Amino acid sequence: MHKESDPIFHDHRGGKLSVQPVRPLTNRRDLSIAYTPGVAEVCQAIAEDPSLASKYTWTSNLVAVVTDGTAVLGLGDIGPRAAMPVMEGKAVLFKKFAGVDAVPLCLDTTDPDEVVETIIRLAPSFGGINLEDISAPRCFDIESRLDAALDIPVFHDDQHGTAVVVMAALRNATLLTGRKFADLKVVVVGAGAAGVAVTNMLNSAGIGDVVVCDSRGVIGLDRPDLHPVKRRLAETTNADGLSGGVADALRGADVLIGVSGAGLDAELLTTMADDAIVFALANPTPEVDPERARKSASIVATGRSDLPNQINNVLAFPGIFAGALAAEATSITPAMTLAASEAIAGLVTEELSPDYIVPSALDPRVAPAVSRAVSRAVEEQSAEEAKRSLSVRWD
Amino acid sequence: MHKESDPIFHDHRGGKLSVQPVRPLTNRRDLSIAYTPGVAEVCQAIAEDPSLASKYTWTSNLVAVVTDGTAVLGLGDIGPRAAMPVMEGKAVLFKKFAGVDAVPLCLDTTDPDEVVETIIRLAPSFGGINLEDISAPRCFDIESRLDAALDIPVFHDDQHGTAVVVMAALRNATLLTGRKFADLKVVVVGAGAAGVAVTNMLNSAGIGDVVVCDSRGVIGLDRPDLHPVKRRLAETTNADGLSGGVADALRGADVLIGVSGAGLDAELLTTMADDAIVFALANPTPEVDPERARKSASIVATGRSDLPNQINNVLAFPGIFAGALAAEATSITPAMTLAASEAIAGLVTEELSPDYIVPSALDPRVAPAVSRAVSRAVEEQSAEEAKRSLSVRWD
Repeated sequence: MHKESDPIFHDHRGGKLSVQPVRPLTNRRDLSIAYTPGVAEVCQAIAEDPSLASKYTWTSNLVAVVTDGTAVLGLGDIGPRAAMPVMEGKAVLFKKFAGVDAVPLCLDTTDPDEVVETIIRLAPSFGGINLEDISAPRCFDIESRLDAALDIPVFHDDQHGTAVVVMAALRNATLLTGRKFADLKVVVVGAGAAGVAVTNMLNSAGIGDVVVCDSRGVIGLDRPDLHPVKRRLAETTNADGLSGGVADALRGADVLIGVSGAGLDAELLTTMADDAIVFALANPTPEVDPERARKSASIVATGRSDLPNQINNVLAFPGIFAGALAAEATSITPAMTLAASEAIAGLVTEELSPDYIVPSALDPRVAPAVSRAVSRAVEEQSAEEAKRSLSVRWD
Repeated sequence: MHKESDPIFHDHRGGKLSVQPVRPLTNRRDLSIAYTPGVAEVCQAIAEDPSLASKYTWTSNLVAVVTDGTAVLGLGDIGPRAAMPVMEGKAVLFKKFAGVDAVPLCLDTTDPDEVVETIIRLAPSFGGINLEDISAPRCFDIESRLDAALDIPVFHDDQHGTAVVVMAALRNATLLTGRKFADLKVVVVGAGAAGVAVTNMLNSAGIGDVVVCDSRGVIGLDRPDLHPVKRRLAETTNADGLSGGVADALRGADVLIGVSGAGLDAELLTTMADDAIVFALANPTPEVDPERARKSASIVATGRSDLPNQINNVLAFPGIFAGALAAEATSITPAMTLAASEAIAGLVTEELSPDYIVPSALDPRVAPAVSRAVSRAVEEQSAEEAKRSLSVRWD
């Protein structure tokens, strides 16, 4: 049972957002400009040339944070109303870190076709779509269909936001331990939204050996039960044809990336390679006890704000959208997320240490650096590259 | 052709709205409250008791301003992107006059079924739905279906906002000219969104004799061509079975209410009763030239801000929603719009004169007075009355 007397409720009373006019409205002239009859001239101009909408409406800096409430935090399918506090919080972070306006939309449907068509109908009102807390594997199909249908950026943060920050952390952890991406043996525990996106990004970055585990163990081509998304994971990972459980996968591995919520015995980490890197990202309870993990691993990161090395996707999404909107990107591409990841990692220089592999979630340098890197990536992309996109296609 | 050099474009650059956090976010504690992990507790509380959503999210003070872009100002079907500047302006007015947060949503569909189902899916994200600039007769069906489906207020401003202000003006004009509602003979020119709503409100107020004209002339039971909405008008007006044109209807009438955009010869007004009341509300060009109208009519009102007696629905919608949201109304009922109308009229007291029958659009007293009156009406409504609603049902 919740206790409304808890101080946390006080801080959410009345919600966390407001809509504000950006110009004063004090006299008849202001009124006739903001509204009728003056506004008609602007409307007509956009009707004649729809590209002017981004210039004369707030959509150019506006993201919809959309959920169907099916996978909210670790709480699961709690529905659209109960999801709203998270989506409002996300909108707060968009504004706070990157100056991007964001409106939370919690949909009263969990049917993927309806989610897709609803967002398509809303698209003229926004400059970008941030999908949030939509359960896997539905999220892959929903994102890929929206990305194909719309000419504005579509980004499922639980997938790619997490992947971007994990890659940034991994880059610095790899540097610190004197390794190279190509030589790494990485085990990803979890094959949901985050696990799939992290794995795809590891593959794109040229990691030598990636093995993914779900609740039934190692994902490989010998598994007859696989959903198309996991089948694709089987095809693109586990080159050695490993089978078995997490324990089998971890033996000799350099890196463990936990994005599952599963509980793992810290004892397993002793079988990993020397100077092991462990990211146990389940929140609030990491997959492995961080204290015990530190005994066998050189570098430990979690999703928790009260421990070092917090992997928090607030490092990624505000700047990614700010950069994409500024550059008028029509999609979020792998080149853009890679640039974001490198920008985050690049902010940690002399201070790089086992307890400081990513910037703080509150570091005000991060979003502007990510935004610039993403905008630059958009500009550098050839027309051909621009056609590729992040979303997982599995049909 | 539009000229972007026109100063009006400068005032719309980048749009007119922003989303702002209502509390500071400066440290790790703030971050863990607004977002994970703290927010989870609030989400769980709402999942257990959905009624808490209005207490702990911004929806309790949030209206969606929704259009499909089919009847924007006098511009017609200019589509969702070109409609956005009007909807943003509306959101500015909601905030400015009544402190209500409003988010403009311009839909990329004109199919009534799709408009209805899209808004139903969005409803958990809002405390009220303001429909805007949706063409007639589609707007009647859309509003009535939404009103039946949703437990939050739904209000098509082009209908009821206009009707509320017209009724307020008519009440004071009637007082000034020493008439009574029951004795009035009123001609409504225009049977679109505003004409239908004005007529329904005139009927509810006990106006003795109402005749409605559309582009084909007087609406009566002898007309074989009528859409169900107009058929209902025929059934509820024109008790004398008049036929013919506007000229026939106006002969001896006390009041002309123009909500059509049609051009009328001012000469026609000379056939009206003495001390005629003329509301020529088409914008920017009133149905009758206001200067000429003044020669035969005692009281002339228009929609223009540069002339006396501006009938502007900004007098109504901000306060109506503020009052409905404050009282947690589940619908906007005739009792609520009547209360709003009386509150507007009641603000003009000693200053009442032929050139001052309604408060100024910028009068800061109006929205709070309307809000209070509407909240009171909600409280006074019996459970039975609450089931009635404003929307025109025609199936």
